[in-house]
Amino acid sequence: MVPHLITALTGPINELEQRILESMPAIERWFRLEWMEHTPPFYCSVDLRNAGFKLAPVDTNLFPGGFNNLTEEMLPLAVQAAMAAIEKICPEAKNLLLIPEKHTRNMFYLMNVRTLMRIFTMAGLNVRLGTLDEEIKAPTELALPDGGTLKLEPLVRTRGRLGLKDFDPCTILLNNDLSAGVPPVLEGLHEQYLLPPLHAGWTVRRKSLHFRSYEEVAKKFAKLLGMDPWLINPLFSQCGEVNFAESTGMDCVQTNVDALLTKIRRKYKEYGINEKPFAVVKADNGTYGMGIMVVRDAKELSELNRRTRNKMSVTKDGQQVNQVIIQEGVITHEQVNDAVAEPVVYMIDRYVVGGFYRVHAERGVDENLNAPGAGFVPLAFDESNHLPKPGERPGASAPNRFYMYGVIGRLAMLAAAYELEATDPNAEIYE
Amino acid sequence: MVPHLITALTGPINELEQRILESMPAIERWFRLEWMEHTPPFYCSVDLRNAGFKLAPVDTNLFPGGFNNLTEEMLPLAVQAAMAAIEKICPEAKNLLLIPEKHTRNMFYLMNVRTLMRIFTMAGLNVRLGTLDEEIKAPTELALPDGGTLKLEPLVRTRGRLGLKDFDPCTILLNNDLSAGVPPVLEGLHEQYLLPPLHAGWTVRRKSLHFRSYEEVAKKFAKLLGMDPWLINPLFSQCGEVNFAESTGMDCVQTNVDALLTKIRRKYKEYGINEKPFAVVKADNGTYGMGIMVVRDAKELSELNRRTRNKMSVTKDGQQVNQVIIQEGVITHEQVNDAVAEPVVYMIDRYVVGGFYRVHAERGVDENLNAPGAGFVPLAFDESNHLPKPGERPGASAPNRFYMYGVIGRLAMLAAAYELEATDPNAEIYE
Repeated sequence: MVPHLITALTGPINELEQRILESMPAIERWFRLEWMEHTPPFYCSVDLRNAGFKLAPVDTNLFPGGFNNLTEEMLPLAVQAAMAAIEKICPEAKNLLLIPEKHTRNMFYLMNVRTLMRIFTMAGLNVRLGTLDEEIKAPTELALPDGGTLKLEPLVRTRGRLGLKDFDPCTILLNNDLSAGVPPVLEGLHEQYLLPPLHAGWTVRRKSLHFRSYEEVAKKFAKLLGMDPWLINPLFSQCGEVNFAESTGMDCVQTNVDALLTKIRRKYKEYGINEKPFAVVKADNGTYGMGIMVVRDAKELSELNRRTRNKMSVTKDGQQVNQVIIQEGVITHEQVNDAVAEPVVYMIDRYVVGGFYRVHAERGVDENLNAPGAGFVPLAFDESNHLPKPGERPGASAPNRFYMYGVIGRLAMLAAAYELEATDPNAEIYE
Repeated sequence: MVPHLITALTGPINELEQRILESMPAIERWFRLEWMEHTPPFYCSVDLRNAGFKLAPVDTNLFPGGFNNLTEEMLPLAVQAAMAAIEKICPEAKNLLLIPEKHTRNMFYLMNVRTLMRIFTMAGLNVRLGTLDEEIKAPTELALPDGGTLKLEPLVRTRGRLGLKDFDPCTILLNNDLSAGVPPVLEGLHEQYLLPPLHAGWTVRRKSLHFRSYEEVAKKFAKLLGMDPWLINPLFSQCGEVNFAESTGMDCVQTNVDALLTKIRRKYKEYGINEKPFAVVKADNGTYGMGIMVVRDAKELSELNRRTRNKMSVTKDGQQVNQVIIQEGVITHEQVNDAVAEPVVYMIDRYVVGGFYRVHAERGVDENLNAPGAGFVPLAFDESNHLPKPGERPGASAPNRFYMYGVIGRLAMLAAAYELEATDPNAEIYE
């Protein structure tokens, strides 16, 4: 099953699509030059929102799950990109230790792990799984829905190195976003490549810093294309010292929501957009679609019920929320079979390797579709493994639409590269 | 239409396929380490012969045509590989000058040129075509069968640089094998990247040197896998000072054919192969399937008719033949729809990007299928854009078969890298 875009998107996004297609060689060269200066994250997925009048990234994941949602046709691109990444970082690598999240019962996630193992095996590495779960004290087989199994093994830490019993990897790939903090077992690994680095984890990352970097990238890119950066950049502001449970620091949030809504209203007026502006308040360090709230009026914030306040207080792995980002809400006007859809783009090294639509039949156009648990259906992009077709009517070609998504996805990845440079504690030694 | 392998291949090749699949991470790492020491040719296509008991490259083309035979699904891999190649060689490149062969009436070839232009445009370069044809003195549009056009432009040479009017490329990509010699306009281009280098052209290349390099590569690889290199390596010898037109130097050819047939017979006996050995005599500098002769008995060489002697005297662009390579003939036991088929593998940089079967309904299992003109049908590999599937019954899975072809294709490409190092006149300056 492949999705078809059934919204008749007109206006700025079609113009953007056309401009992006026409400028393809210039855009690709621009990325090439940026990657000469900035190291791309090892891998990355980016959630996009396409409002028809605006296309923006809303989340950039540096420990992407969901590789299992890519189609078989996309995987060779992933393998080739993985080869290119390994070649640059650690060409002599033989063994790769993959450290996944601890959800051993989420079959979707386990299939993601299995897909990552396939990709890196095909790219030429012996891949084994080490778990951060200290309950697992012996190799443990987990059954997969397709009849296969995954073997989780307890980590073995020696002085400078991390491995498994009889398995000494030169490279460790994290697929765990470290929301629960950096486990001591991962600290001080100066003899091995640890990818992504520890400061890419949610103990260090802040959404506000990412979107500040993204703003910088979007401005540069908009200048290249001669366009208004707002068309690809969600406005935002930030508040520290917020405590939802105790209702402290809410003035800041209220003031910022109000100011943001005014700014959006002005932009909507400028473009003749007939939509009601909204803001999204998110935990600055949150992930997994947790700690997110849609606000259409600043007044709503003084009337939060206990349930919402609790929801906003804690995010994944019990991490406390005390900083929030207040971001321009971008509705999604893409639909697949009458359900609201949001594109997700996957990248390895500097390459777009695939993507899919996150589709949610029960959610509205302005809601967060990355809800924990089930309820959304991944649909691979139609013909995304075809090259874009210059000269097609804008909005009429799936490969062209996907190329544009790939460009915006890569802008967010580049922003992540800026962000990781800014937060690099220089503690990692790449030898 | 996709091909299906209808020969029931058993024996050594299925064992080889299984061993190659099982050794995938080790093989990929081995290639990675080889590419650290040796620079892959910019692009490359390799003709293979699968005899069921033996799989060997028979021709390695460093100026590959036929990119138009790759499917739409394969092209994104080609684009990604082209991006990786450009990134390494000339990341700041903006303009690419592509210099094709002079056949302006061969629509298959022109579609190949068009496909190359698409690939490098998508990879982020402005691509224009410059012609070596001095008859073309003004920009000339050529109509393509799909309704598109190609514009050939006359070359403009200034002191140190080659370009077109109002087009100064930093990189020049040759898709012309220089059989007619190196045109002065291409000499001394020290300020630009000329890819592949001039010594990759047929004025310098010799098949015998390529296969000597291949023998070295095959031995290393066979050692890695613990197998007999003969299973992937065609035996050969060489004669200089041959003149078919005047029937001089034929003693050498006869003696070598005889010795080679004896060696093959011994190998066939060792493996219990019930086939009649044959040798292929080829112009050492020949290409385009020209200057090739099948010999089943050395005596045949004393009875050559005038037509054969003429055919063997001259190859593409009137180049004289005076050295020949005498190579072990490898029958092809693959068939598509009852027609004899020969796989061709395409590579850009170090990556396999696709392939197809060259199918010829009117030729035998021991004949050259690369006949000039039409008469063969390219059929894209079935599911070649799927990842290999470890654990499948050998010979039963098209992606697994294709992975094996990709490995052997890359061995030939690696041999070409060795060969280009050996023949490098150090005249090229890469700055």
